[in-house]
Amino acid sequence: MRQRMIVRVHAAQDEITAALSAIDGQAFHEDLWERPGGGGGRTRVLEGGDVIEKGGVNVSAVHGTLSEAAAQSMRGRGLSIDDPRFFATGLSLVLHPRNPYAPTVHANYRYFELGAEASPTAWWFGGGTDLTPNYLFDQDVRHFHGVLKAWCDEHDPAYYPRFKEWCDEYFLVRHRKETRGVGGIFFDDLHDRSRDEVFAFASGGLSAFLPAYLPLLEKRKDTPYAERERAWQGLRHGRYVEFNLVWDRGTAFGLRTDARIESVLMSLPQTASWAYDHHPEPGSPEAALVEVLKSPRDWV
Amino acid sequence: MRQRMIVRVHAAQDEITAALSAIDGQAFHEDLWERPGGGGGRTRVLEGGDVIEKGGVNVSAVHGTLSEAAAQSMRGRGLSIDDPRFFATGLSLVLHPRNPYAPTVHANYRYFELGAEASPTAWWFGGGTDLTPNYLFDQDVRHFHGVLKAWCDEHDPAYYPRFKEWCDEYFLVRHRKETRGVGGIFFDDLHDRSRDEVFAFASGGLSAFLPAYLPLLEKRKDTPYAERERAWQGLRHGRYVEFNLVWDRGTAFGLRTDARIESVLMSLPQTASWAYDHHPEPGSPEAALVEVLKSPRDWV
Repeated sequence: MRQRMIVRVHAAQDEITAALSAIDGQAFHEDLWERPGGGGGRTRVLEGGDVIEKGGVNVSAVHGTLSEAAAQSMRGRGLSIDDPRFFATGLSLVLHPRNPYAPTVHANYRYFELGAEASPTAWWFGGGTDLTPNYLFDQDVRHFHGVLKAWCDEHDPAYYPRFKEWCDEYFLVRHRKETRGVGGIFFDDLHDRSRDEVFAFASGGLSAFLPAYLPLLEKRKDTPYAERERAWQGLRHGRYVEFNLVWDRGTAFGLRTDARIESVLMSLPQTASWAYDHHPEPGSPEAALVEVLKSPRDWV
Repeated sequence: MRQRMIVRVHAAQDEITAALSAIDGQAFHEDLWERPGGGGGRTRVLEGGDVIEKGGVNVSAVHGTLSEAAAQSMRGRGLSIDDPRFFATGLSLVLHPRNPYAPTVHANYRYFELGAEASPTAWWFGGGTDLTPNYLFDQDVRHFHGVLKAWCDEHDPAYYPRFKEWCDEYFLVRHRKETRGVGGIFFDDLHDRSRDEVFAFASGGLSAFLPAYLPLLEKRKDTPYAERERAWQGLRHGRYVEFNLVWDRGTAFGLRTDARIESVLMSLPQTASWAYDHHPEPGSPEAALVEVLKSPRDWV
């Protein structure tokens, strides 16, 4: 399974970066890196593109012995750590388009194993795909959620409603009482059926990414905009930074361990801004977005 | 003491905002707010000024009963909480100048009390003043530290060396292995002599702020700069955001309790940026700054 998932995430990285480069016209910059404790990764970053202002599509496969901090963090999630040897592989991507009408997107699919490869004491998959627009287009959000739901339904009709709700709960900017975006799906510690079946589900999540997101990027990347929309995008980027640095479990973990910082923080936008006590004008398109972030909707 | 410190921080806020407005030409916007649990504050913010791009000088005086989270956080610092009734008052300021050659500055002086006002079970003062330049001017940093040391030395010659080191340790962007800036002083839980004496020390810190900082702002606010310096300032603002959102104890606490979010986050710059794996050119003025952040120096 280790090898199968490694091959799968590398293939997905190739497919996704090729499709994005084709739209943007710029190639991704690639860094291969090794983790001192074992394993490494392939980070691909695109900065200053015509379509993608800043984005990264990273894969890694790391192994070693869990630090006490890591083991404690996992116990805090109700997992029992009998054998501290671990293996983890996954793909993680964040894309911040230049056009304020094109939404930011995030996806992450990972496989985790404890114990010896021949007889792991525990294994699980985690992942999700979620959308963070600056402006709300109902049909875009419905398309995005629709593709995710169709994939989930192939595996279990209970998955989409459960993981959609989990996503809204997870990506909550708690101090703002608003969600980071319009959601998608999120799951973790998934091992509710055979490893082959959960692998097939996670693998399907990687396959669903481009069909869910690319049509939105294509549709919005050339929409005319002016200073007002860029300013709003900057403020929304600020909220994105707040979520990622304050509340995101993966980022917090990465910043407190020996993870490769540049790969962890590739999720941050090129530019973010803050204004004191800013509220969009009632009735404006900006206010319409915030309304949905304050009370998440069902989209399909 | 409650009343004395309330009067002191309000007077300092008046003095500091008046001096800054005089330099900038723009007045601070003022918000008076009440805390549902007891007390309130006076937030003063200046945005988009010619000299100060974004800054806030806030005072508050709040009281009530410590939440379990707050009590736990204090116990984690080795304090025993016999009576959960609390009172806290203080001044907190952050100034981000527009000119990249003018340094960002932060100061915070506060008084905390547990138990009944007539017979507190515990009390302490905390505070500090620290500087975050984008470009290093040795004479500026020496002046800044010199003023702080002169004030500390009036109270105890052991204070400055101890609190200077504490500052370098506290304002460490741990995941970057660099300090946020060139330091200053930082202290907390200070109750090593009579309340009158510690009050006089904290009060002196408020008085030392303008003499320490204003000459630097005056000297650098009109230095010509171009796109290169603004871009570097943006990246340094990004590190400032990383520290405040990930590592600053006060911010973390504020974001997890019922604190007024807009007052907590007034510390963030107007704009911050991130670039993947950015390193300043060896030998450049930008690299000279980073070198000092990697290994803090003695300045006086």
